[in-house]
Amino acid sequence: MNTWGRAFRVTTWGESHGPAVGAVIDGCPAGLHITREDIQKELDRRRPGQSSIATSRTERDIARVCSGIYEEKTLGTPISIIIRNEDVDSRAYEELRQLPRPGHADFTYHAKYGWRDHRGGGRASARETAARVAAGAIAKKLLLLKHIQVLGHVIEIHGIRSKFVFENPEDLLQAEMSLVRCCDTAASDEMIACIDRVKKAGNSVGGIAEIVAFNVPKGVGDPVFNKLDCELAQALMSIGAVKGVELGEGFKSARLTGIEMNDPFTVDSGRIETKTNKAGGILGGISTGSPIICRVAVKPTPSIRMRQSTVNLESLEEVNLSISGRHDPCILPRIVPVAEAMVALVLADLMITGGFFHPSRLT
Amino acid sequence: MNTWGRAFRVTTWGESHGPAVGAVIDGCPAGLHITREDIQKELDRRRPGQSSIATSRTERDIARVCSGIYEEKTLGTPISIIIRNEDVDSRAYEELRQLPRPGHADFTYHAKYGWRDHRGGGRASARETAARVAAGAIAKKLLLLKHIQVLGHVIEIHGIRSKFVFENPEDLLQAEMSLVRCCDTAASDEMIACIDRVKKAGNSVGGIAEIVAFNVPKGVGDPVFNKLDCELAQALMSIGAVKGVELGEGFKSARLTGIEMNDPFTVDSGRIETKTNKAGGILGGISTGSPIICRVAVKPTPSIRMRQSTVNLESLEEVNLSISGRHDPCILPRIVPVAEAMVALVLADLMITGGFFHPSRLT
Amino acid sequence: MNTWGRAFRVTTWGESHGPAVGAVIDGCPAGLHITREDIQKELDRRRPGQSSIATSRTERDIARVCSGIYEEKTLGTPISIIIRNEDVDSRAYEELRQLPRPGHADFTYHAKYGWRDHRGGGRASARETAARVAAGAIAKKLLLLKHIQVLGHVIEIHGIRSKFVFENPEDLLQAEMSLVRCCDTAASDEMIACIDRVKKAGNSVGGIAEIVAFNVPKGVGDPVFNKLDCELAQALMSIGAVKGVELGEGFKSARLTGIEMNDPFTVDSGRIETKTNKAGGILGGISTGSPIICRVAVKPTPSIRMRQSTVNLESLEEVNLSISGRHDPCILPRIVPVAEAMVALVLADLMITGGFFHPSRLT
Amino acid sequence: MNTWGRAFRVTTWGESHGPAVGAVIDGCPAGLHITREDIQKELDRRRPGQSSIATSRTERDIARVCSGIYEEKTLGTPISIIIRNEDVDSRAYEELRQLPRPGHADFTYHAKYGWRDHRGGGRASARETAARVAAGAIAKKLLLLKHIQVLGHVIEIHGIRSKFVFENPEDLLQAEMSLVRCCDTAASDEMIACIDRVKKAGNSVGGIAEIVAFNVPKGVGDPVFNKLDCELAQALMSIGAVKGVELGEGFKSARLTGIEMNDPFTVDSGRIETKTNKAGGILGGISTGSPIICRVAVKPTPSIRMRQSTVNLESLEEVNLSISGRHDPCILPRIVPVAEAMVALVLADLMITGGFFHPSRLT
Repeated sequence: MNTWGRAFRVTTWGESHGPAVGAVIDGCPAGLHITREDIQKELDRRRPGQSSIATSRTERDIARVCSGIYEEKTLGTPISIIIRNEDVDSRAYEELRQLPRPGHADFTYHAKYGWRDHRGGGRASARETAARVAAGAIAKKLLLLKHIQVLGHVIEIHGIRSKFVFENPEDLLQAEMSLVRCCDTAASDEMIACIDRVKKAGNSVGGIAEIVAFNVPKGVGDPVFNKLDCELAQALMSIGAVKGVELGEGFKSARLTGIEMNDPFTVDSGRIETKTNKAGGILGGISTGSPIICRVAVKPTPSIRMRQSTVNLESLEEVNLSISGRHDPCILPRIVPVAEAMVALVLADLMITGGFFHPSRLT
Repeated sequence: MNTWGRAFRVTTWGESHGPAVGAVIDGCPAGLHITREDIQKELDRRRPGQSSIATSRTERDIARVCSGIYEEKTLGTPISIIIRNEDVDSRAYEELRQLPRPGHADFTYHAKYGWRDHRGGGRASARETAARVAAGAIAKKLLLLKHIQVLGHVIEIHGIRSKFVFENPEDLLQAEMSLVRCCDTAASDEMIACIDRVKKAGNSVGGIAEIVAFNVPKGVGDPVFNKLDCELAQALMSIGAVKGVELGEGFKSARLTGIEMNDPFTVDSGRIETKTNKAGGILGGISTGSPIICRVAVKPTPSIRMRQSTVNLESLEEVNLSISGRHDPCILPRIVPVAEAMVALVLADLMITGGFFHPSRLT
Repeated sequence: MNTWGRAFRVTTWGESHGPAVGAVIDGCPAGLHITREDIQKELDRRRPGQSSIATSRTERDIARVCSGIYEEKTLGTPISIIIRNEDVDSRAYEELRQLPRPGHADFTYHAKYGWRDHRGGGRASARETAARVAAGAIAKKLLLLKHIQVLGHVIEIHGIRSKFVFENPEDLLQAEMSLVRCCDTAASDEMIACIDRVKKAGNSVGGIAEIVAFNVPKGVGDPVFNKLDCELAQALMSIGAVKGVELGEGFKSARLTGIEMNDPFTVDSGRIETKTNKAGGILGGISTGSPIICRVAVKPTPSIRMRQSTVNLESLEEVNLSISGRHDPCILPRIVPVAEAMVALVLADLMITGGFFHPSRLT
Repeated sequence: MNTWGRAFRVTTWGESHGPAVGAVIDGCPAGLHITREDIQKELDRRRPGQSSIATSRTERDIARVCSGIYEEKTLGTPISIIIRNEDVDSRAYEELRQLPRPGHADFTYHAKYGWRDHRGGGRASARETAARVAAGAIAKKLLLLKHIQVLGHVIEIHGIRSKFVFENPEDLLQAEMSLVRCCDTAASDEMIACIDRVKKAGNSVGGIAEIVAFNVPKGVGDPVFNKLDCELAQALMSIGAVKGVELGEGFKSARLTGIEMNDPFTVDSGRIETKTNKAGGILGGISTGSPIICRVAVKPTPSIRMRQSTVNLESLEEVNLSISGRHDPCILPRIVPVAEAMVALVLADLMITGGFFHPSRLT
């Protein structure tokens, strides 16, 4: 399905080399102030062609709002956003019509649908995430009404780790200064050098990003199958190159003992809270009031110039392949705004189903 | 929501110390041969009270089928399964009515619902998973018609790692010989010793389990928001103590390069397949035909005898707490059949929505 | 699917001659006071064997609550209700294993599922509605918090029309005094005589019931596909013998002109309301604040003693059939509480999704 | 919600006087041949401005397909269709900003959302149905693969009844020759004269349309809450002016006896079928193999020139209103293609969930 959510629903559509991609956002309460710039700002963060270490495909990614907003306020009706595909160059893909690229969805789409739009990965292209980011921009605006901020940063690329420790939202905003969205300047430089190196070698690298949601009130999440953490896991895993998701201490918790992992309760200014936040802000699938902390493992971009073997879908002949298109040697920095969008969508949805926002109107 | 799935839907209900727990399975095609033993066999694998390193709560967990099966064949109508709660001892919980246990859902349920059934964790108890295992038994029986087997084993407890390498389903069946469901005998012994040690200390430990689905055909998974991997991530993360989920190389993929991570295609007996399976059997959210490999990180059981601090929900006084009930010092081995059930449910659901099974009848 | 609703969800299960029927109600906010009597009272209204003009199958229909309610208050978790099938006599059905009864679902269930539980209509039996009535009892209790009452009465049986005009909820409560739930005493007597006559002839009759929801606030209903009227139409049409549904003036509106059909607006005590209520309390799929008025056309019970022709599913031979079991010659009076339950479920669901009730807790 | 369906899902968006309206169709199997003309043909049947008895708003309603179709074949990915709003004249509506029109959704949208796009009815405008018709065109094309045809005709306007009796699809195609889509030429003329008369008087009229689906195989429909008839009732009732829906004998069945209403079974060419079709092709919510026959009651257009009273939403003053815009004095003929589209969508959806079409690909 191409629709996500129960109360704040997003439907995305569009192929990489078709006329456009877009999103329909249904269930945003009426009365939210939204300008085109609110959406554009987020799209610009994801947009390709912005640095030497990203793809050279240049898309302006202009968001056009076709419904649901009138006089800069949401109507409670579906918000349709359309983003034209501009810098499309399909010639390079003609030879790929019958050649599934390793690590890509070509082979499995062929298996599932019988045929596919092979140009630029078609529907499976990362371009689809532009629509998610546009939808996420609206979710972020809604969450801001409750002072919730969703911010991401890169904490590891090809084994190079950020030593940055954040305390508040402002800290994480620094990520935007780094080409790789890493707040640790030294690590950032090292990461950029590493990416440059693999790019020249015609190879690619992966890494880990961390997304934090600040000021989420306690009580968000619908047990037992729509827990906040399972919704986050699903939403984040739905992003193309993500191979792992963890909350709080995540995989590290497997090595801790109970007394090390449990967050004891205490009282601060008359409110119960946890002394530590190893749980990542979630217990029993419901938010505790502490920051929500999740991490995604992103695999290296599968499109590489280095020679790989594949098989012609028709002739069944094994052939060598060297992918020459315009690709990000490390997609992770551009995944950060996408992952933020998904976290924002999860929160908006669960906060409406959970009664934190009125489902129809804000006033 | 307490319902999971689109075509093969499972609704679970029940509190730990209420009269019963149960599941309604809706959407199983008619004509599937099911006996009470098929269900009981799986429940027995999850059942408490089976070894020195597990909780001493003894439940027979007898499955009673109240609908949907007639003359040992499914009718295509909802299958209602009821499991009575027998060995319930609620006295120990009276003092916990106002004391949220660290690492448990007590505090967040209170925040969300205003009050709760505090006895044994109520709805948030691991007892709820009995219902999932019963439902999973039906999914497994359905999958067997296509020779699909879903098998799990423990690969790490508190840092002790299994060195076991599996090649086929039979290999993993050995896990059932080990008290901790670990196929590596030496590691298994070490794990058991470790659990015994922490149990005596009134502490607990976590670990990692791996679940493998063999013989899943290519083409299973519904992009873009119901990809096989996002469904698995959601389903597995919905299990109580799980803090992380990964597919294939998972978090390790963050350190690999493209050429190391991509699985090249080749032809074997006239069929296209991948030479390696670093993707864990999924590309673009759709199965490749290789085994589906996923891992879950499970935190240490939060119920420990060691002293922890908490806060009285009414008086807001900070108090010390030592949890004395009957608990598993390491819940991981008992999570294996639950995780298998969830993977089986995901596959059954996506294989029906994907046209691999007729949605109404098998004959 | 056997699940209904988005926020207040009901899953029913059970076959007529299986061990039990039941419902799982998921999404009822925590803190609602519910006793077993609240549920039993509604079940008793639907229960068979209560009068000379109803079936002689006697079921006590005892509701057993297995989860979701603790100390007489809802927990916000699924409420599982089980009703045992007691007075089951399957012998009469053995000869019907291969003989689809005209007007029943036997033939179509066979077509869809390949086989079926033929005893008493199996899943398609009106017995399934007991589960709906139990669920509806909880919805009604919830609605009462907002002073909403859902009341039904019979307005026509086999052409005999009630002349009763209601003004307030109390008026409609009189329906319970009549064996056929008709508030017009003279018409009620005539209807009873008519039913007696067709019963003796081995035939059956249908009729029309009207369901009214009082005190529904304005603003309930989710355009464009979950309008209050389309939800009502779906919910009411899902009841076995219903062949038509109308709102307000309904089919009569097809003969009116605009000036006759439109309800002009006026102001009463500072509130805008309509002067008339030809719309039946709904405009654009959203409630106006006037009573919601809907009607269902119910066909004559298909089980009749009179000779009908059918075909043996295996031999394909045409045979004559005379159905001898215990059946209601007019099912309409017993459909009234079922239809009320469905209307209550629709309202509970749309009022939660619409923000009229907090989705998790009442306090 | 603005999304309809489970397997063949349609999301519509757009306000009457916004930039465009549109639909996203998700779940159409890959490989269906679709041209822009297939869609345009149906839009042209619904398009305004085509006769003296319809509104003079002229819209070309050009469908632009932005995704999901490549080389004239569906991809199995979402199909995004956009229809620009061209002949928009919002001036007439400025004075209606605070004046809810009787019989329209203005008042209830205001109640639900707090504010609204008042121009042309905004989201509640009949213009939204253009998106449904576009989606329905794709459903119709899919159904044609199984020789299913969905055809509608007008059978009554303001009490004037068609005497036309159809036997096969070709008969109903004649409806397109009549300005009011009535197959009975004499009745058609009378209806047109009637509409002309009320138009001159500044009034409007309603009527009844019948939609028939031919060649639907037996076995379509998902009990108990997604029965074919409840899905049809919901889908048809979701169309603006519809106030009643009936299947087969519908409300008339309330006056029949069992022996008159039941359709006896017989064998024809080795296949079991019913001798008559009073059920309208549905038993127990599942298709019998006979034509599906449903009827909708449509109220008179609420926009009339005759003087009506309403209330200013801000000042609460009662004022007189005479609506001068461009409106259809009888919307029924233009509702026929919309109702056909809804029936086609229901069938496409239930035939995919029911296994009659492969959910992902046609070849």
